[in-house]
Amino acid sequence: MTRSWWLDPCKTLDAQTYELALARQQQLTKPAGSLGQLEALAVQLAGLQGQLKPCVDQVWIAIFAGDHGVVAEGVSAYPQAVTGQMLHNFVTGGAAISVLARQLGAQLEVVDLGTVSPSLNLPGVRHLNIAAGTANFVQGPAMTHAQGCQALDAGRDSVRRAGEVGAQLFIGGEMGIGNTTAASALACALLACPVSDLTGPGTGLNAQGVSHKAAVIERALALHAPRRGDTLQTLFSLGGFEIAALVGAYLACAQEGVAVLVDGFICSVAALVAVRLNPSCRDWLLFGHCGAEPGHRHVLQSLAAEPLLHLGLRLGEGSGAALAVPLLRLACALHGQMATFAEAAVADRPA
Amino acid sequence: MTRSWWLDPCKTLDAQTYELALARQQQLTKPAGSLGQLEALAVQLAGLQGQLKPCVDQVWIAIFAGDHGVVAEGVSAYPQAVTGQMLHNFVTGGAAISVLARQLGAQLEVVDLGTVSPSLNLPGVRHLNIAAGTANFVQGPAMTHAQGCQALDAGRDSVRRAGEVGAQLFIGGEMGIGNTTAASALACALLACPVSDLTGPGTGLNAQGVSHKAAVIERALALHAPRRGDTLQTLFSLGGFEIAALVGAYLACAQEGVAVLVDGFICSVAALVAVRLNPSCRDWLLFGHCGAEPGHRHVLQSLAAEPLLHLGLRLGEGSGAALAVPLLRLACALHGQMATFAEAAVADRPA
Repeated sequence: MTRSWWLDPCKTLDAQTYELALARQQQLTKPAGSLGQLEALAVQLAGLQGQLKPCVDQVWIAIFAGDHGVVAEGVSAYPQAVTGQMLHNFVTGGAAISVLARQLGAQLEVVDLGTVSPSLNLPGVRHLNIAAGTANFVQGPAMTHAQGCQALDAGRDSVRRAGEVGAQLFIGGEMGIGNTTAASALACALLACPVSDLTGPGTGLNAQGVSHKAAVIERALALHAPRRGDTLQTLFSLGGFEIAALVGAYLACAQEGVAVLVDGFICSVAALVAVRLNPSCRDWLLFGHCGAEPGHRHVLQSLAAEPLLHLGLRLGEGSGAALAVPLLRLACALHGQMATFAEAAVADRPA
Repeated sequence: MTRSWWLDPCKTLDAQTYELALARQQQLTKPAGSLGQLEALAVQLAGLQGQLKPCVDQVWIAIFAGDHGVVAEGVSAYPQAVTGQMLHNFVTGGAAISVLARQLGAQLEVVDLGTVSPSLNLPGVRHLNIAAGTANFVQGPAMTHAQGCQALDAGRDSVRRAGEVGAQLFIGGEMGIGNTTAASALACALLACPVSDLTGPGTGLNAQGVSHKAAVIERALALHAPRRGDTLQTLFSLGGFEIAALVGAYLACAQEGVAVLVDGFICSVAALVAVRLNPSCRDWLLFGHCGAEPGHRHVLQSLAAEPLLHLGLRLGEGSGAALAVPLLRLACALHGQMATFAEAAVADRPA
């Protein structure tokens, strides 16, 4: 029996630093509120880091990959072998997230939790081989309790490695053909939303494909309805290894005191699971973007999240969060480096 | 009589490079369209620069400042002396745009077209002293024809300096207490929109202040109605020196072949004037953000603009465009550095 470390309390925000940062924002040479969302962002980071002038120079990006048994139901536009092929692309530098990590000077780690190509042995990838993908969740639970715990632990372990190199921001990404189906099913179960609200084209289904995907999700929800009151059981019944790893990572970040920048639809569903399991993690979750997958908006609303970007992205891999990193860095630079009205001898209003 | 250089033809987009860049996007290892707005952005930059792999490393930011006679009507929350005080803050590094320029490695130039403090002589500021601010446009034209031409030329001259150092992207910013009033009046005249749609709080008016500002704009529109069919005359009647300079800069960029990233409400109104004067400039204008000033959305729609950021900004100074620069750079990096399906041996769909 694994100890349920994910239920341990999360760090609390430093209220005094938060208040000081809020007061500093009011003193900077600009009309109050004129930097919009970036003001609250800098103040939040100050409170999280316990630093009046926060900093997110050190960014850790962990990509969690896994395959999905439900792909047997024909829910994806791509063949399942792509999960493994993309692992190779991540570590050889050709994937979107590889390019972004390089440009941002972020550390990129790739964790293979279990794909349909279990013989993969790629330099630079951590192969955990929990199983050759999850089981098909229209026929039974996606994973066993032990497998689920292994995946949660894998997320926590990545956060520990991030902590060892002084990461100030954690981004989790995901790769797994079929994982929007798992994420939609999970979100439906947790939010009690109509399946049609939370099911979309993923990487590129047409309308008929989306409708088939929704029917598959309906069957899975019916099968697993008895476990619906239990968030952890719901995660293990309908989730994926990479989704469970993200849940574990987000909760570990909140416990260790590392701010998280959540990526797209799948990551946001993992964030929802994390908040349901342990609500005290919520303060540590910042949201990078609202993507094109129609369900993303619903999930973000359920978390009262205010994402930074709205660019119609639907790639995953952590790419949307990575694209938002410069906004966090610039928000910190503005907060830390702008002159106050007094320093610059500029008249504040009223005249 | 100044020659009307601003009516000269603009450079055309390189259609062949544009098509090649579009084809390249389809080959990159991601679902087609999954990078959302960033795909079209990279392709557009490729066409503008005539480079299959475009680049916006070299960024030029020019802040144009000017005072506004209409401030005598009580349309701003801040005292007029702030324009001059902020010029000082720009060059000493404490203003938002100073911090952003530094972080982005962008060159920052500050041009004072004419403020109520004509004795200002700040190291690092180009003082042009066209006049001690514009005239109050509820009583007559904001500027003479000669003054307007001087301001347009000042914009063009900044673009020439940008060109000399190899700028790949031009950002114009503005500073001028009262300039949302001038921008709203101009936009109303050009778009034939109700004044209430295009008038907002600017740097921080309350509801009563906004209503007074709208009444002032109504008076100005009535006075200058006879010149309304002529865009240049409307600019000179209702604009500001910094707005005219932005118009000149945008048109010169399009003529010289330098991509523009347009900032907030005031800059977008200048872009509207530029497009009305010389429609062939439109391709060269990219839009950084949609801000909090309520009229901004209307002006962007009239230009069929798709801004990159929606962060509730309302600062000006070019800050919103500067905040979007990393997205342009990352869009270029993704476009230029991602592997193709063939290079990475990843299966493209269909399966």
